[in-house]
Amino acid sequence: MSSTKRGILERLNAGEVVIGDGGFVFALEKRGYVKAGPWTPEAAVEHPEAVRQLHREFLRAGSDVMQAFSFYASDDKLCNRGNEAKEKFTGAGINKAACDLAKEVAAEGNAITLGGLCQTPTYLSGKGKKATQEVFLKQAKVFVDNGMDFLLCEYFEHVEEIEWAIEVCKTLGKPVAATMCIGPEGDLHGNSAGDCAVRMVKAGADIVGINCHFDPFVCLEGMRKMKAGLDAAGLKAHLMVQPLAFHTPDAKKQGFIDLPEFPFALEPRIATRWDMHRYAREAYEIGIRYIGGCCGFEPYHIRAVAEELAKERGKLPKGSDKHDMWGQGLRMHTKPWVRARADRKYWETLCPASGRPYSASLANPDLWGVTAGNEDLMQQVTATSEEEIKKLIARKA
Amino acid sequence: MSSTKRGILERLNAGEVVIGDGGFVFALEKRGYVKAGPWTPEAAVEHPEAVRQLHREFLRAGSDVMQAFSFYASDDKLCNRGNEAKEKFTGAGINKAACDLAKEVAAEGNAITLGGLCQTPTYLSGKGKKATQEVFLKQAKVFVDNGMDFLLCEYFEHVEEIEWAIEVCKTLGKPVAATMCIGPEGDLHGNSAGDCAVRMVKAGADIVGINCHFDPFVCLEGMRKMKAGLDAAGLKAHLMVQPLAFHTPDAKKQGFIDLPEFPFALEPRIATRWDMHRYAREAYEIGIRYIGGCCGFEPYHIRAVAEELAKERGKLPKGSDKHDMWGQGLRMHTKPWVRARADRKYWETLCPASGRPYSASLANPDLWGVTAGNEDLMQQVTATSEEEIKKLIARKA
Amino acid sequence: MSSTKRGILERLNAGEVVIGDGGFVFALEKRGYVKAGPWTPEAAVEHPEAVRQLHREFLRAGSDVMQAFSFYASDDKLCNRGNEAKEKFTGAGINKAACDLAKEVAAEGNAITLGGLCQTPTYLSGKGKKATQEVFLKQAKVFVDNGMDFLLCEYFEHVEEIEWAIEVCKTLGKPVAATMCIGPEGDLHGNSAGDCAVRMVKAGADIVGINCHFDPFVCLEGMRKMKAGLDAAGLKAHLMVQPLAFHTPDAKKQGFIDLPEFPFALEPRIATRWDMHRYAREAYEIGIRYIGGCCGFEPYHIRAVAEELAKERGKLPKGSDKHDMWGQGLRMHTKPWVRARADRKYWETLCPASGRPYSASLANPDLWGVTAGNEDLMQQVTATSEEEIKKLIARKA
Amino acid sequence: MSSTKRGILERLNAGEVVIGDGGFVFALEKRGYVKAGPWTPEAAVEHPEAVRQLHREFLRAGSDVMQAFSFYASDDKLCNRGNEAKEKFTGAGINKAACDLAKEVAAEGNAITLGGLCQTPTYLSGKGKKATQEVFLKQAKVFVDNGMDFLLCEYFEHVEEIEWAIEVCKTLGKPVAATMCIGPEGDLHGNSAGDCAVRMVKAGADIVGINCHFDPFVCLEGMRKMKAGLDAAGLKAHLMVQPLAFHTPDAKKQGFIDLPEFPFALEPRIATRWDMHRYAREAYEIGIRYIGGCCGFEPYHIRAVAEELAKERGKLPKGSDKHDMWGQGLRMHTKPWVRARADRKYWETLCPASGRPYSASLANPDLWGVTAGNEDLMQQVTATSEEEIKKLIARKA
Repeated sequence: MSSTKRGILERLNAGEVVIGDGGFVFALEKRGYVKAGPWTPEAAVEHPEAVRQLHREFLRAGSDVMQAFSFYASDDKLCNRGNEAKEKFTGAGINKAACDLAKEVAAEGNAITLGGLCQTPTYLSGKGKKATQEVFLKQAKVFVDNGMDFLLCEYFEHVEEIEWAIEVCKTLGKPVAATMCIGPEGDLHGNSAGDCAVRMVKAGADIVGINCHFDPFVCLEGMRKMKAGLDAAGLKAHLMVQPLAFHTPDAKKQGFIDLPEFPFALEPRIATRWDMHRYAREAYEIGIRYIGGCCGFEPYHIRAVAEELAKERGKLPKGSDKHDMWGQGLRMHTKPWVRARADRKYWETLCPASGRPYSASLANPDLWGVTAGNEDLMQQVTATSEEEIKKLIARKA
Repeated sequence: MSSTKRGILERLNAGEVVIGDGGFVFALEKRGYVKAGPWTPEAAVEHPEAVRQLHREFLRAGSDVMQAFSFYASDDKLCNRGNEAKEKFTGAGINKAACDLAKEVAAEGNAITLGGLCQTPTYLSGKGKKATQEVFLKQAKVFVDNGMDFLLCEYFEHVEEIEWAIEVCKTLGKPVAATMCIGPEGDLHGNSAGDCAVRMVKAGADIVGINCHFDPFVCLEGMRKMKAGLDAAGLKAHLMVQPLAFHTPDAKKQGFIDLPEFPFALEPRIATRWDMHRYAREAYEIGIRYIGGCCGFEPYHIRAVAEELAKERGKLPKGSDKHDMWGQGLRMHTKPWVRARADRKYWETLCPASGRPYSASLANPDLWGVTAGNEDLMQQVTATSEEEIKKLIARKA
Repeated sequence: MSSTKRGILERLNAGEVVIGDGGFVFALEKRGYVKAGPWTPEAAVEHPEAVRQLHREFLRAGSDVMQAFSFYASDDKLCNRGNEAKEKFTGAGINKAACDLAKEVAAEGNAITLGGLCQTPTYLSGKGKKATQEVFLKQAKVFVDNGMDFLLCEYFEHVEEIEWAIEVCKTLGKPVAATMCIGPEGDLHGNSAGDCAVRMVKAGADIVGINCHFDPFVCLEGMRKMKAGLDAAGLKAHLMVQPLAFHTPDAKKQGFIDLPEFPFALEPRIATRWDMHRYAREAYEIGIRYIGGCCGFEPYHIRAVAEELAKERGKLPKGSDKHDMWGQGLRMHTKPWVRARADRKYWETLCPASGRPYSASLANPDLWGVTAGNEDLMQQVTATSEEEIKKLIARKA
Repeated sequence: MSSTKRGILERLNAGEVVIGDGGFVFALEKRGYVKAGPWTPEAAVEHPEAVRQLHREFLRAGSDVMQAFSFYASDDKLCNRGNEAKEKFTGAGINKAACDLAKEVAAEGNAITLGGLCQTPTYLSGKGKKATQEVFLKQAKVFVDNGMDFLLCEYFEHVEEIEWAIEVCKTLGKPVAATMCIGPEGDLHGNSAGDCAVRMVKAGADIVGINCHFDPFVCLEGMRKMKAGLDAAGLKAHLMVQPLAFHTPDAKKQGFIDLPEFPFALEPRIATRWDMHRYAREAYEIGIRYIGGCCGFEPYHIRAVAEELAKERGKLPKGSDKHDMWGQGLRMHTKPWVRARADRKYWETLCPASGRPYSASLANPDLWGVTAGNEDLMQQVTATSEEEIKKLIARKA
C-alpha cells in the first residue's frame, strides 16, 4: 500500500462509503473473454488488455476497490470437468497476472486492491477441512505476495466452508472481508443468515455480508437479517453487499443459478440504473458502507450507485462527465418527446415493459435440492460425457 | 486498402456473408464514455483505449467490418442544444481519430473499414439540400482522406435526406451502402419501405437496407418489403440489415425512440444470443448477406450471428474459443441441473421471464407525430432552458 | 308479434340502436346446464328455469332481442361424436322449447324474438348444398312456426355455407340477419371480410356482420373491412356485431378456439365492463346499430353497452337500478380508499393485473390449418375412441 | 331440520367433507341484482327468482349448505352512506325472505341451511360492544326464528368483533361457525392468525377458519397458521375455508379490497376450475373438512371442488351430468385440436395467458393503513358528498 493511500478499514472506520466494483465474469463473457460454464479467469493472462479496460471502466464509474480478476482461479477449478485452463496456465500464474492488472489500474486512481477466494470443488466433493484449506492458502498467498491490500472470501454457500477460508486468510495479516452468496433463507446447510454473519465475525472477518445469487432487494433483506443477528449477539462488524444486477424475486434458496434463464437468457432481468439508485439508498439506510455489485453489474450500474451517494461521499465519479443524473442529458436530444424525459419522476416511477408478450414475469426455478456432500455434487477432472449429459437432461424433463 | 484484402463488393459479389459490428454509442454509454442525449463520439479522441477495445471485441466476435466510431459526428450535431463537444474538438478531428482506430484494429484481422454518415440537425431544421449536402461532404471527405474502404449512409428517417447523402458519397469513388432507420411502415414522409429501397438504389447505393429503430424481426419484415420493392422495380442491389438488440413489437413508426423505456430503461427488452441465432438464420434466408447490429448489440450478439452462420461462412469467429454453441460450455458447470441445460432445445424454446411482476410486456409509445419540417424539430445551439423542459414535460403528461 | 311491438327492421331503419344479448352456452356452462364440447342447448327442455332466468337477466341488462336458446340444435349436431342429446330429445323439441322461453320473457319487456341457425357438421363433413340446406330448413321452420320475429344465420366460418343458410331463410318471409365468426383476415376459404359482407347481402341478408371468435376490438376491425367492402360494392345493409367477451389479440384466423386456453382457462381474458363501454362507443361510431355479445358476455357486459349508449337510446336499462355508472356506487363503500375509486378516469385508465405472475400475456395458438373438406374435420356419430384421442394428443405435443 | 337430515356437526364429526356455496353478492352483481358499493341483499325481496336460481345452481354444483342471502343485511348497513335499501325494506324483512329461499331450495336436495352475520358499521364506527351485539342479536334471531340449521359469523377483520358475534350466537342454541377475512398476517389489530383461531374457539365457535379477502392459496397459508395455533393451544375445532375465486398474491393485509382492480376490474384474476381442483385437494390435505367459496366463486368453481373430492365424498354432484372431468367433454368437439385437449395433464399444467399485453401481472395495493377506530372509518347515514369524494380522489392520487 502506498504511504498515502488509506486502507479499507481506515476508510470504513471513518464512516466513509466504499464502493465496490461490478461482475467481471459476466461482463467479460459478453465481451468474449470468459467461457460460461467453467467461468474461470484465464483472461488475465490471455487478454490482459480486456481485463485492464474493464478495471478502468469501474474505476471511472466510482469503484474504490480494484479486485484482482481471480474468480474461481483455484487449481481444482481450473481443471474441473474438462476445463483445459490448467493445462495452459497455473492457478498461481493467473492470480499473479490478475494482481498486476488490479495494481496497475488502482494506481491510476485512489483505489485499493483486493484478492478474493471463493468456494471450491474440493469442499463440494466432501474432501474435508485440511484439503480445502490447502487450496485456499495456496491462492491467498499469491494475493499477499503480490501486494493486495486486503482479502475477500466471497461466493460461499456453506458457512462452514467460509469459516475455513476466513481462518486461512486471518493467518496472513491482512484485513479480511467475507460475503456469502445466500439470501434471507440462510445457507444451504440450514443456518440462518443471522447465524452466518455471527459465525463469519467469530471466525475473524472484519467486514461481513452477502454477494451474488440474488437481486439487490433480496440481498438487502438478507443483510437486514445479518445485521439483526449481529446485534442480537452483541457483535460489531462492517457490513458489505455486492448483489446481482438481475431481478430475482422468484429465486428460491440457491438463487439465480436455479432460474431457468441462468446463464444465457437473463437479459430481461437486467436491472436499470434507476433500480441501482434505489438499491444504493436502501443499502446506505440499513447502515451498509461497503456497497458494490456482482454478476450483471456493468460500469453504469456502479456509476449509478456512486451518483446516488454523491452527497454522502462528497464527490461524483469521473464517469459522470458522460452522464447527467436523472436523465438530464436528454435535454440535448433532438426529439422533443425524449427531451420531456429529462425528468427524475419519469424514471423513478417507470415500470419498464419487456417487449416479450409470450414471456411470463416470474419463472419456476429448478429445485434439485442437492447440497455439499450430495453425490450429484462430486466434481471430477474428466469432461462430462455424452451419457452423463443425456441422463441429466432426461432427469430435468 | 491492402493489396490482399478483398473489398466489400468483391465479397458480396462472391456471395459471401459479411458480418457487421454492433452498436458503439449504446455499448460505450454503459461503459462510461458516451453521453446519452447528444450521443456524440468524442470518445475517439478522449478515450481511444475504450473505443479500440470495443473494436477488438467485435473483431473477435466475427465482424468483418470495422466502422469508424463517428456516429453523429457532424459539426452541426456536436454543438446542438448545449453539447460542448464542438468547443473541445472539431468534427474533423473526431472523425480522423475514429478512422485511425478502425484501421488499427482492422489490421489485426482480415477486416475492412467503413466510414458512416447519418441524419443531420441541418436537414431536420429544414435548411435545404445545399446546406445539408455540405455537412455530408465535409464528413465524408475525412473518411476518404483517411483511407476508409467504403462509405455508409445510415440512420436516416427520410428517404429524401439519404438520397442527398448517397449522391454526395457517390462523388467520392467508394462503394456506398445505405440503410434507413425505418420499419415495415416506411419513412416519416409516408414513403413505403419498398419505395425507399428503390430510391436509394437509383440514387446510387450499391448496398441497401435498414438499421436501428426496431428489433431484428420487425426490421426483417421491413427488409422483405424492400426486397419486394426492388424486385418489382427490376432493380438489383445487395441487402444489408443492422437492427436493434431490443425487442420492440410495440413500437410504432418512429421506432424505439418513442417507447417509454428509451433510452434508460430498455434492459428488459435486450435480446438474448438465442434471439440472434434466429435473426441470423431468417436474415440469411431472405437473401441478406450483410448482417450486423446496431444499438444494444454487444459483442456476444455478433458472435451468435457468426456462430449461426459458421457453416455458410466456413469458419467460427475467434471469440468462440470462449463459447461452445448452444450452451455446451455448461457441461463444465459444477451444478448438475445447470449441466442439464447444455441442450440446444432448452435454449431454443425458453421464453425468459422478466423478474418484474409489476411491469407489463408491452408499452404505449409516445406518438407526437412530428416529422422533419415541423417546428418542434427545429434544432438550436443553445442548451434547452428550464422553461422549455417544463413545457415539454407538461405536454407529455 | 304484438300489434304494438316494432320489428327489427323498423327499428334499424329508424336509426335506433338495437342491443343484442350475451352468450348463452358459456354462461350456462358455468351455471351447470350446458356441456362444453358438444355445446348443445338441451337445457331449454331439461332446465327451463335456468334458461328463463338468463333471458330475464339480459332483458334487465338492456337487450332488445330475445334469441331462442337453440345454438347448434340441428339434428346432426345433437348426435355428433357420442352426444346423447338426440336420444333424449328431438332437435325440433329443443327448438320449440327455446322459442317458448324466448317469447315468454320477451313479453315481459319490449323485446323482439329471434331464431338462429349456425354452421353444421353436415357442411363440415362435405355433404354438399342439398343436404346442408335440408338441415337448415328443418330448424328454421320451427322458428317460424313458433312465431320468432326474425331469423339469424350466425357463427359460420365459410361464406359459402352462410349463403346457403341465408337462401333458406329468405324463403320463409322473415327479416334475415347474418353474422360470420371471422376476423379481419376473412373466412377459412380465403374470402376477405369485405367480400363475405358483399356475398351475404347479395344472398339476401338484411343485416350483416360478425359474431364470436374474436374480442370486441378485433371484431370491429373486421367490421370496418366489411363496411368498406359494402361501400365499394355500392351495397347498403344494416351492420351487426356480437363479439366475444374475451381478449384475443393473439388469436389467428380461426379465433379463440385455437388459443390454448379454450374453453376451460379463458378466465384471465374476460373483458371488464369498462372494455365494453369502449367497445360500444367504437361500434356506434363505425355506424353499427345492432350491438350485442357472444361467448363470455354476461348480463353486466350487456348492461355496460346499454349504459354507454344511454344517451343515444334515450334510456337506461332496468338493471341500472343496481349500477351507478363509472363506479359511482362505490360512494356507499365502507372503506375510504374504495370510495376514492368512484371516479370515471380511474376505471377508464386502469390496466388490470392478472394476479398470475407465471402466466404470459399472449399465447401461441394451435394452428392445425384444417378447413371444411379436410379429412380431420369429418364428423361422426360414434364417440371419439381412446385411440383417436391418444393420436390427437400425441399429434399436438 | 327434517328428522332425516343430518346436521352440520353430525356430518363433520363423522369425518365427512362438507361443501359450502359460492359468493352471492359478486355473482348477483354481475347478473344485475346487487349494487357494488353497498353490497346489500335486498334482492331476496325484490327478485327472489334470481336468488332462488343461484341457490339451485350451487345445489346442483354440490353445495351441502344453503346460506341465506343476508350478507350485510344489518340495519346499520342498509342505511349507510345513502343506501336506500332500509327505506324500502327492513333488515328483518330481507333476512326472513332470504331464509325462506334458502329453505325452499335446501328442501330440493339434501342441504342444510345457514344464517350468517358479518362485520358491522356500528363496530367500525367505534360504538362499542353493547351497541354492536344488539345489531348481531337482532339479525341472528331472525335466522333462528326462521329455522336456519346453524349460524355463521363471517367476514370479520377484527377478532374482537367476531368474539362478540360468536357470544351472541352461542346464546341461541345452534352450532356456530366463525370465519375471519384475514390472511396469514392475521387481523387488523395485529393478532396472529393462530391467536384469532384460538380466540374464536374459546368464544364458543364449533367451526373456525377464514373466508373472503384472499385467493385459495393465500387463505390456505392462513389456515395452516390457524391449525398450528389451535394445536399449540391444545384446542380442537372443525376447520372451514371459503376463499375468493380471484388470484391475489399481491394483496397485503387487507386483502383484495386494496387491490386497484377491486371491484370492477378483477376479471383477469378469476380462478379457473383447475385452480379449484388444486385448492380442494390442498385444503383436504390440511385437514379442512368444510370447504366452500366466497366472492368470485361461481357454480362451476364449486362443482370443481366437488369433483376433485368425489372419491372422498363417494359421489359426484348433479351438475356433473353436464361436465366430464378434466376436459373429457371435449371429445365431442368438432375441431380435432380441441379434442386433443381432452387431457388432464394439458389443463393441469397450462398457465393461461391474459390477452392483455399492456397489463402487469401484479399490482401495488392501496395501503391506507386505517383500521377500526380510525376516523376515516366512521360510517354515516348521509350519502358521500361531492366534496368528500373529491378529497378522497385527491388523497389517492
